[in-house]
Amino acid sequence: MESVIMNGELRNRDQCLISFEDRGYQFGDGVYEVIRVYGGRPFLMEEHLHRFKRSADELKIRLAWDEQELALMFNELVAVNEVMDGKIYVQLTRGAAKRDHLFPGQAEPVLIAYTDPASRPLDKMNKGIRVMTVDDIRWLRVDIKSLNLLPNVLVRQQAHDAGADDAIFVRNGIVTEGSSSNVFGVKDGICYTHPAGNLILNGITRQKLLQLAEAHGIACVEQAFTRDQLLEMDEVFISGTISEVTPVIAVDGQPIGNGKPGAITAKFQEALAEAVRSACPSADIRM
Amino acid sequence: MESVIMNGELRNRDQCLISFEDRGYQFGDGVYEVIRVYGGRPFLMEEHLHRFKRSADELKIRLAWDEQELALMFNELVAVNEVMDGKIYVQLTRGAAKRDHLFPGQAEPVLIAYTDPASRPLDKMNKGIRVMTVDDIRWLRVDIKSLNLLPNVLVRQQAHDAGADDAIFVRNGIVTEGSSSNVFGVKDGICYTHPAGNLILNGITRQKLLQLAEAHGIACVEQAFTRDQLLEMDEVFISGTISEVTPVIAVDGQPIGNGKPGAITAKFQEALAEAVRSACPSADIRM
Repeated sequence: MESVIMNGELRNRDQCLISFEDRGYQFGDGVYEVIRVYGGRPFLMEEHLHRFKRSADELKIRLAWDEQELALMFNELVAVNEVMDGKIYVQLTRGAAKRDHLFPGQAEPVLIAYTDPASRPLDKMNKGIRVMTVDDIRWLRVDIKSLNLLPNVLVRQQAHDAGADDAIFVRNGIVTEGSSSNVFGVKDGICYTHPAGNLILNGITRQKLLQLAEAHGIACVEQAFTRDQLLEMDEVFISGTISEVTPVIAVDGQPIGNGKPGAITAKFQEALAEAVRSACPSADIRM
Repeated sequence: MESVIMNGELRNRDQCLISFEDRGYQFGDGVYEVIRVYGGRPFLMEEHLHRFKRSADELKIRLAWDEQELALMFNELVAVNEVMDGKIYVQLTRGAAKRDHLFPGQAEPVLIAYTDPASRPLDKMNKGIRVMTVDDIRWLRVDIKSLNLLPNVLVRQQAHDAGADDAIFVRNGIVTEGSSSNVFGVKDGICYTHPAGNLILNGITRQKLLQLAEAHGIACVEQAFTRDQLLEMDEVFISGTISEVTPVIAVDGQPIGNGKPGAITAKFQEALAEAVRSACPSADIRM
């Protein structure tokens, strides 16, 4: 039986149940993170836990463990569940209380963390994906990694129903991000991505790619671009904890560049793979 | 022990627990209603169940019971819990599945309904409340009564922290609605409220008041107004299932009209009270 962490304790997965008055269930009043595990080792866990703490702080939800304690817990979870290639999902809610919009006086926050297998989306990473653009109708604090994910769910399904692999949000003509990823475009050798702020979630992989760009001499600027500019890019890719660096070869049925994954996208893929190899030596990272 | 309905069956409240992989818990992927019970009888239940079905349809969540079956269930729940003055809370989620934004193929939707005591907010109804305006940063489908309620929670708390009783949302200068209510303003004998559409939740009490206005010869139009116009109203009130018709006597520290509940507000209060008395004969409805 797989183990789960609930409020700091390891439990059997099936012994871990939630109150229907948990504010996560009634209001989406909580935050989460997904951490990738490669070769038995969490990747960029510190960065994820730092953002987790920030999200909790933004919602004023008390996180009873510091980032080091959480890291220890999650390493133990990965070990007892014998996760080699997988992910840690962790969420924190404000806890159970009589339903009232106001923050409850007494509620104990609920922390749940579990692991699941995950594999690199190598086929998509090699061949690229086709996306559609959709109106970004989300609220204006998507920088908080909260459990209010209904618009993300709906556009992901909308894209699927339309035969696309994913959806890219456009707000007032400006490309913000993907349904669960950040978006990068390359034009004339320069890489562009929407600046951090309240209109995108500042992805951990996004931040890592910005560092890697600098280290590898790839010109990369945090500068927004329009949907029209997106269609004129030489290369487009999305980044995410699970999707890593996945080329986008078509947007709304129109090919990007020559309709094949591009060279700078490949550079980013290789640079990220190298970072994974270095942080997680037992990982089997090939393209 | 109080009873709860879970997926059509009456259960003891403490035997009713939720999977942490319920999509309501991880994405807020679900819808809800709150139905008021007066004198042992649900008020406007048909209207609430109709909206519940509409919300579920908008999210393409299968509701396995029709509105008549739900009404029978909820009447039974009210009876076994011996609810005289209270409320029924019901929510439907897409159910538990391996976490993925895409709608799951296999998940069984989860329906939970329970009752809680409620009383009329007579003090606020008689004296009025003081509200603050806040930016409406919510998503653009608030016509769906979904579990993505984080912005509503945050502004309610923000108002409380600022010493106000509630928050009123303003989008691009236009008053939309309250944190969990609709907003009406009265100027020169005419009553105004934001039109239905994707920017407000079309309240059941709001709809009832529009009918009552017609029946009682109160001029009432669905026409939006600005925050500046709000401050210049002769009367302002909010409407809701729990708040009924509650006068607003101050906005952002500025008195509305003479700073006391107004005459047309009182007319609406009395008209609604009469509707309750008529539908729920055992209710003790006094002002």
